[in-house]
Amino acid sequence: MSRIAYVNGRLVPIADATVHIEDRGFQFADGVYEVVAVLNGAMLDWPQHAARFGRSLRELSITAPMSEAALSIVARRVLAANRIRDGLLYVQATRGAARRDHPFPAHAVPTLVMTARPFDFRVRTAQQKTGISIVTQPENRWQRRDIKSIALLPNVLAKQSARNARAFEAWFVNPDGTVSEGASTNAWIVRKDGTIVTHPASESILHGVMRGTLLALAREHQIRVEEAPFTVADALDAAEAFITSTSVPCLPVISIDGNPVGSGVPGPVTARLAEALWAEVERQTGWRR
Amino acid sequence: MSRIAYVNGRLVPIADATVHIEDRGFQFADGVYEVVAVLNGAMLDWPQHAARFGRSLRELSITAPMSEAALSIVARRVLAANRIRDGLLYVQATRGAARRDHPFPAHAVPTLVMTARPFDFRVRTAQQKTGISIVTQPENRWQRRDIKSIALLPNVLAKQSARNARAFEAWFVNPDGTVSEGASTNAWIVRKDGTIVTHPASESILHGVMRGTLLALAREHQIRVEEAPFTVADALDAAEAFITSTSVPCLPVISIDGNPVGSGVPGPVTARLAEALWAEVERQTGWRR
Repeated sequence: MSRIAYVNGRLVPIADATVHIEDRGFQFADGVYEVVAVLNGAMLDWPQHAARFGRSLRELSITAPMSEAALSIVARRVLAANRIRDGLLYVQATRGAARRDHPFPAHAVPTLVMTARPFDFRVRTAQQKTGISIVTQPENRWQRRDIKSIALLPNVLAKQSARNARAFEAWFVNPDGTVSEGASTNAWIVRKDGTIVTHPASESILHGVMRGTLLALAREHQIRVEEAPFTVADALDAAEAFITSTSVPCLPVISIDGNPVGSGVPGPVTARLAEALWAEVERQTGWRR
Repeated sequence: MSRIAYVNGRLVPIADATVHIEDRGFQFADGVYEVVAVLNGAMLDWPQHAARFGRSLRELSITAPMSEAALSIVARRVLAANRIRDGLLYVQATRGAARRDHPFPAHAVPTLVMTARPFDFRVRTAQQKTGISIVTQPENRWQRRDIKSIALLPNVLAKQSARNARAFEAWFVNPDGTVSEGASTNAWIVRKDGTIVTHPASESILHGVMRGTLLALAREHQIRVEEAPFTVADALDAAEAFITSTSVPCLPVISIDGNPVGSGVPGPVTARLAEALWAEVERQTGWRR
């Protein structure tokens, strides 16, 4: 399938999709992004993604390349051009191209890029049955993780270290033992009393859209929720643990650094939340497993 | 003047110099760079820059795009194509282009880009006479600052905050009050006893090439040197302070957050070091003010 990308106002074959070498996204990681799940042709939680994209841009004083409404139209065109039924939409904006110099350039036009690719979410519903493994590593990232910036090098290295250890994800652990989040997912535990716990939405973590959806669904289902930091020891002492993100909607964690979580198999609370999530996905998009 | 860039094996007009939108430098800040000073047509401290470039690549497990010898040949071609007598050479390598996914791709060819532009170092020798101002801000970067990565977003924001305050540079201050370094320069003080002090070359700072050159020159000139952290209070209590980098060889700091350093004018030890530095530059390149 020949993929089509959107680059600064044009739809182009992916092979011809380029940006300038002096784009500040390439030289300074001076940009932000979103990944949006597409199911049954519909964008899941689009308003939340568009709002977060706008907030990330504002936090960096990057002019929004277009309105939220226009962004949504371009997104739909990219999905249509690539005939995406189930897939992932990628949206990135940068401060634009300018002669290399650290401060914001006086006259740069923001760069906007979108791509889309097919993704079968049944891969994830299958993984729900087996669960996934986590490795931990010291938190070493910059302190504004609430901005969804493209300065992802530490996340890349963490993800690779997970892969090297045959784990699915790496959790960043602070000096006080608390877990902030995973390299590309938010981290959760289910305490033995049934309460689900995840890090508060501070500057220390990305405010995951899926995290927000899961919190709302848990409350709807009368599952007790606590937004508080937890340690690796708390996770190993918990009944269950799981991770969430746009492309990893809700996957049970069965081991951390080789130690089993709970009974070492996916647990009932995670399964219940995942069920609630897929029901919400079906409600929004009509998608069925 | 029409500028020429090197991109993956080709010299191209700067307007046509592009990389793929799925280059990991653009999507993940998964790359490293060097800036090299060119004086009188010669690259200052090239072996040190080439060695650091190689080290940064190795730390990230990125395959070197070419040998140091080949890199030097390409650098000279870029300088010649742009007729650079006095200027700055920029070299950047990334892990290459691949379908977006955090872990290292199995088959990506590293991207190599070089640009060059004229720069008149007499701008700096003039600034030596007036000195520059510093603002401080909390250290908020990732922890591997010894790797010269393109994940520069926090540095960009710090530099912009300095510009907003009409200062030349921002210093990053740790929770314990010590200064790690500037947004694009290393930080130094001259104690009242004449000892010059700069942060040790740990993972907390970039191991500046100019920093290394200045340390060697200071020792040669029997100036006492201490590689140790200093606080903002130490700097305000010092006789002098200064900053160094490739493009800012040695500039006196006359104020920090609006408070004068020493007598509030450039001091004699900084001037002596700068003299030694320009003598070394002349020795290496023949360049004269």
